[in-house]
Amino acid sequence: MATSKIMNRRDLEFLLYEWLDVEQLLTREHYAEHDRETFDSVLDLSEQLAEDHFAPLNRLADTDEPYVGGDGRVVQPAQVHQALAAYTASGLPASVFDAERGGLQLPFVVHQAASSYLQAASIGVFAYPFLAEGNAGLLVAHGTPEQVATYADPVIAGRWYGTMALSEPQAGSSLGDLTTSAVRQDDGNYRLTGTKMWISGGDHELAENIVHLVLARTPGAAPGVRGISLFIVPKHLVEADGSLGERNDVALVGLNHKMGYRATTNTLLTFGEGLATPGGRVGAVGHLVGEEGLGLGYMFHMMNEARVSVGAGAVALGYTGYLHALDYARTRTQGRTLQHKDPTSPPVPLTAHPDVRRMLLAQKAYVEGGLALVLFCALLVDESRTQPDPEAAREADQLLGLLTPVAKSWPSQWCLAANDLAIQVHGGYGYTRDHPVEQLYRDNRLNPIHEGTAGIQALDLLGRKVREDDGAALRLLGTRIHAATRAATRAGGPAATYAAALDDAWSDVVRVTGVLWEKGDPVLALANASLYLEAVGHVVVAWLWLEQLIVAGEREGAFYDGKRAAARYFFAFELPTTGPRLALLASLDTTTLDLDPDVL
Amino acid sequence: MATSKIMNRRDLEFLLYEWLDVEQLLTREHYAEHDRETFDSVLDLSEQLAEDHFAPLNRLADTDEPYVGGDGRVVQPAQVHQALAAYTASGLPASVFDAERGGLQLPFVVHQAASSYLQAASIGVFAYPFLAEGNAGLLVAHGTPEQVATYADPVIAGRWYGTMALSEPQAGSSLGDLTTSAVRQDDGNYRLTGTKMWISGGDHELAENIVHLVLARTPGAAPGVRGISLFIVPKHLVEADGSLGERNDVALVGLNHKMGYRATTNTLLTFGEGLATPGGRVGAVGHLVGEEGLGLGYMFHMMNEARVSVGAGAVALGYTGYLHALDYARTRTQGRTLQHKDPTSPPVPLTAHPDVRRMLLAQKAYVEGGLALVLFCALLVDESRTQPDPEAAREADQLLGLLTPVAKSWPSQWCLAANDLAIQVHGGYGYTRDHPVEQLYRDNRLNPIHEGTAGIQALDLLGRKVREDDGAALRLLGTRIHAATRAATRAGGPAATYAAALDDAWSDVVRVTGVLWEKGDPVLALANASLYLEAVGHVVVAWLWLEQLIVAGEREGAFYDGKRAAARYFFAFELPTTGPRLALLASLDTTTLDLDPDVL
Repeated sequence: MATSKIMNRRDLEFLLYEWLDVEQLLTREHYAEHDRETFDSVLDLSEQLAEDHFAPLNRLADTDEPYVGGDGRVVQPAQVHQALAAYTASGLPASVFDAERGGLQLPFVVHQAASSYLQAASIGVFAYPFLAEGNAGLLVAHGTPEQVATYADPVIAGRWYGTMALSEPQAGSSLGDLTTSAVRQDDGNYRLTGTKMWISGGDHELAENIVHLVLARTPGAAPGVRGISLFIVPKHLVEADGSLGERNDVALVGLNHKMGYRATTNTLLTFGEGLATPGGRVGAVGHLVGEEGLGLGYMFHMMNEARVSVGAGAVALGYTGYLHALDYARTRTQGRTLQHKDPTSPPVPLTAHPDVRRMLLAQKAYVEGGLALVLFCALLVDESRTQPDPEAAREADQLLGLLTPVAKSWPSQWCLAANDLAIQVHGGYGYTRDHPVEQLYRDNRLNPIHEGTAGIQALDLLGRKVREDDGAALRLLGTRIHAATRAATRAGGPAATYAAALDDAWSDVVRVTGVLWEKGDPVLALANASLYLEAVGHVVVAWLWLEQLIVAGEREGAFYDGKRAAARYFFAFELPTTGPRLALLASLDTTTLDLDPDVL
Repeated sequence: MATSKIMNRRDLEFLLYEWLDVEQLLTREHYAEHDRETFDSVLDLSEQLAEDHFAPLNRLADTDEPYVGGDGRVVQPAQVHQALAAYTASGLPASVFDAERGGLQLPFVVHQAASSYLQAASIGVFAYPFLAEGNAGLLVAHGTPEQVATYADPVIAGRWYGTMALSEPQAGSSLGDLTTSAVRQDDGNYRLTGTKMWISGGDHELAENIVHLVLARTPGAAPGVRGISLFIVPKHLVEADGSLGERNDVALVGLNHKMGYRATTNTLLTFGEGLATPGGRVGAVGHLVGEEGLGLGYMFHMMNEARVSVGAGAVALGYTGYLHALDYARTRTQGRTLQHKDPTSPPVPLTAHPDVRRMLLAQKAYVEGGLALVLFCALLVDESRTQPDPEAAREADQLLGLLTPVAKSWPSQWCLAANDLAIQVHGGYGYTRDHPVEQLYRDNRLNPIHEGTAGIQALDLLGRKVREDDGAALRLLGTRIHAATRAATRAGGPAATYAAALDDAWSDVVRVTGVLWEKGDPVLALANASLYLEAVGHVVVAWLWLEQLIVAGEREGAFYDGKRAAARYFFAFELPTTGPRLALLASLDTTTLDLDPDVL
């Protein structure tokens, strides 16, 4: 029975230790310095920061959203500065980085589990360190030692933040159309000119510097994505000794005002507009990362982790909403049951009503299933990096690639649905800003959009991931699923029944995948890719519920009873909904292909 | 091809004239003074008011939500006052009332169609006349002639507004638990004491008076809903000559701050707290409507219309969101198609991407299907009132009763889903407050909650409506559905295929209804009532798409092609989703009944 309304520590420990057995990572050289106590203390620390600093400011960070003051600087509440300062002071910004960089060298899966407290407590505020981590990780992977020391280390230390500057106003998802230009100068640096849109954390006063990682096009570069290079463009230039120098020619044009996720500034930035004149000249000074023309590849190197973390954020929002709804439903009394309708009897808790129980159980199945999904993928990140067996590492990487679009999109859809149900459980109260669930719903609505829309995830899954290496990743996933269904069949009881249903559903997925690509026509195959993504997502999460059920086994106690109840719900109410989706896909339906948009 | 982004006039005319043939109402004595030109001019007028006054203020009405000023009065932007004054000046508040009351005596279905423009343009502002209409309608039906003249006529004239004051803080949906008391005085009036929560339009300065219709309990009344009486409690007492007298003892305690629908004040009111002393004494003066103990019945007399109108509001929000998404998708270019990926070619409109077309077609199917549903029900209101054949009138009433929970809940779910898709089509832009779709999504989220939550609609449908009169209403609906499937079968082609699918789905609904009630155990029967409501809703809307397809027939033109495309979508993508829901119901699943909430 959960007590905190941020995250459920018992569930995190179940997933990390009882199911994923993350302690086996301690046998790897990379994590040999740690022990379970380290992992637990990181969870403790994150929970404490979430309780003390992040959760208390979350409503304020929404109502007092960032604005541009008279001096052109972004203004945010002092509490936002303080919470981030506390996070920096905790050392957690360095969680996943190597000890030689001053990092804690923690497993990504432990870091992700710990971060879920901060995401649940105030996702809009936690976005700054989240973005910074991805930014520094990319530089560590692809920058020169000097670039890493100059631009990544201050971010790892939590002193600076960083961005990923991809989109432009005329080119959102279509990165091949970006037009920001970067011209090489005699000193080997570049000067950038252009406009970037939707840049989260693109400007603020939360740190003394911001490291923008900017995609731009060099003169004469190939059209499309092959002509894109990656540049480090700091807000303030950095002197040789690491101190801050001149203001670079990158300027905030405006803030986007969003429905939710408001604590995160989302910006329109111009580069090279002459709003500063570094070195006495117009043009944003940029430093090339790696080689020209390979920028998109570097950017996407971090994409699996970034997308898994977006999914984890969606889970965290759904999870905390569920815990709030559960608390409300247990304490709020309303009406009477069908069994005892006597109006003179006292009203019953909301949990006495079957439809409220259905809404709570659905939320539990979505958010605990989603948490299993994102932690499983986070462990694959660790496996792909630290597995000593190269074949096992390759398999982990392959499975991670396949599951990434699912881990990003499934929680974005279903943990948002959980937030919707959390409002409904609260009734009218849930629709007011006196309860947190409406903000969670608004915040979570961003997740199906950013870091690649749901539609793009669907094309990634069906157009690329299931086809790579002749479908090896899909076969690998099938192997894992069958291992679970075999174990469940041996266990007997409900687990065996669910295993049979899952085997059938997986066979359907494999068959439908074959039907879709039978003619090798991408237009026909991808016509209903979104439905494919939804169906695969539900089948994958059904598998993860079966995994949890197997671990729960016959163990006694309310916690395991809860796992059994949620698994039962998922197999009774959710998995069957994949049937019509897969049937439509198998029919090679062309409704949307045939549609002339002029008739809409 | 739609041009207005508020509502599609062509579709309204198709539904009203080509499908529902509302001109046949002109043969009824009650509407004999009208002609089609009257109907059209009411649509024109509403469209004009929506364009000129309501749509332009909708964002302002959200950002500048009502607040309580220093003098304790509610402050709202001048534009809200002006828009409502324009609506009053138009005479439309009197639309559905009899000529003898100064009304226009228009069919409810025409009024509902016309009102959809105002609901789409600014549902939060239009809520004031909407609530007032229901209030006056109730008094006209159940008040004394003097009560009607004193309290309803000024509302019909648009000079005053009115509320329905049911809920209390401790008793939301459970009206039997309300505790507001009403004590009869020597003069025949009552004095009320108590607190009411969630009262929309409960206070404001938009009109000189507000007529509260308040449910309260008289001393010694029976417990539960049988002890509830209905009272007129005006904000200002009314003198014999109709002029305003003293301030009554009803006071605004606070405004609820909502996620959306912000223009409508939502209030916590106290009665009899001594904040005014009418006649020199504490206690809110109330006038009994009808007889003591029958209050809830009077209140529910108007419930069919009120719930259909809530559904219509949900449709209108979904509809205008769709039109905005369609406009955006046609003009915004982004990326390239799978057929033509050359990065040097110009980017294509969003409508060129199949997944965007899917999202637009889904919205079209939801909002046009929803509009058909609410207008069909609105016509049933007229039929039940003006059908000269008493048997036909009774049937209309029966069908209306059955369909009311569907008309309230289906659009609240699926037209909200349409708003979600409208955001997704806009990408990041849709998540900003620079585009209207995020507000529509927030506004529409109220609809599954107020006027009876979705869960309560489900109990109404499965627990009451399908059982009344030995299932007569369900059989009646079956007759209507079979008439359509027979006609579609005769027509052949896709319509015949859809008809077969609909016949099967309807058989399943009938069979499942029988299975659920086979043991006569309400606990078991109603365990998954929400899924029943969803399944029946989709089957009903599938039928209404078949009806529209039959009317479209072989007619040429983009409009009819659009109807055929949306019908095709609904039968391919939506109707099949009822299969798993009905199968779960047929299995008498007890997952939620068996659940011990302590394990959550």
